[in-house]
Amino acid sequence: MQSRQWEVRLSGTGGQGLVTAGIILAEGAGIYDGKEVVQTQVYGPQSRGGASRSEVIVSDEPVMYPEVTESDVLLAMSQEAANAYVHEQRPEGMVLVDSTFVKQVPETEARVYEIPLTQIARAVAGTEIVASIVALGALAALTGVVSEEGLEQAVLARAPKGTEEANRKALHAGFAAGAELREQ
Amino acid sequence: MQSRQWEVRLSGTGGQGLVTAGIILAEGAGIYDGKEVVQTQVYGPQSRGGASRSEVIVSDEPVMYPEVTESDVLLAMSQEAANAYVHEQRPEGMVLVDSTFVKQVPETEARVYEIPLTQIARAVAGTEIVASIVALGALAALTGVVSEEGLEQAVLARAPKGTEEANRKALHAGFAAGAELREQ
Repeated sequence: MQSRQWEVRLSGTGGQGLVTAGIILAEGAGIYDGKEVVQTQVYGPQSRGGASRSEVIVSDEPVMYPEVTESDVLLAMSQEAANAYVHEQRPEGMVLVDSTFVKQVPETEARVYEIPLTQIARAVAGTEIVASIVALGALAALTGVVSEEGLEQAVLARAPKGTEEANRKALHAGFAAGAELREQ
Repeated sequence: MQSRQWEVRLSGTGGQGLVTAGIILAEGAGIYDGKEVVQTQVYGPQSRGGASRSEVIVSDEPVMYPEVTESDVLLAMSQEAANAYVHEQRPEGMVLVDSTFVKQVPETEARVYEIPLTQIARAVAGTEIVASIVALGALAALTGVVSEEGLEQAVLARAPKGTEEANRKALHAGFAAGAELREQ
């Protein structure tokens, strides 16, 4: 099999849990799936304005150049994040937007998937807090960057006590939503 | 004031909370203190063997080169981590070891501080889980890489519900232990 490197960017606003989501994706792919992973967050004037961004590079081989410039996979959970990052996406890559908040996707050659991640989180788990976990499930099903088993183990290892069931429901709803779109 | 860049490496074993500690340090310095921060974890064969490592670069200016090679500040919470990273420390820098687990510090020109971080966590908060928070408090007092106020806000923002008081006690015990050593 050809060696493959995925550059994944998770973007949205503070409070959506994207830093934790980046760690979970990294631990699923790195600790459970056995890939080489570099996971990064950058804080600066943007983050003080409420923007939040997390990046994960997943590779079959040690990662030499840890800075993500263009991404293969972009998650945008706010309109501002979509406006900022869709144009930094590789055209052969894919974009997943949370259609709960992203009402207009900037023009792009990349394949765009729209899923109401936050509405799904509220519906299946009764809380918006796990919307980023719905997103991870959808990304796993759409891309294969992390195995569903590895991701589930990583989610449960990081879920605060008492929130395991909400996280598991969110994850499975995300898998299902992603799988449905993939088959279209 | 001269522009300054700190490269901080937090190292130990999985389960000591060093990835979360890296995020908290980054959010304290980045979101609350207003610095430019890049925070990274790398997963690979080492992490599958149980080693855990997190890196934080804190700067007055945007960080151009995000990879930490030699660190200015090293936290080593296991003997293995001390063995692996003390020799990658800049000689003008400082090393903080958890003397609960690190019984022999490899020879180095860097200044070494030994604090029984895990024993302190057990004593003040009744749990080892917050040993990395004791460590962050001590690092803040010893180095000034993050303000005590910024760090406290970041710790409380990331503390799971019901653990705020344990985290606050751990943090203050760490500040006190660091301040005491600094004055010697």
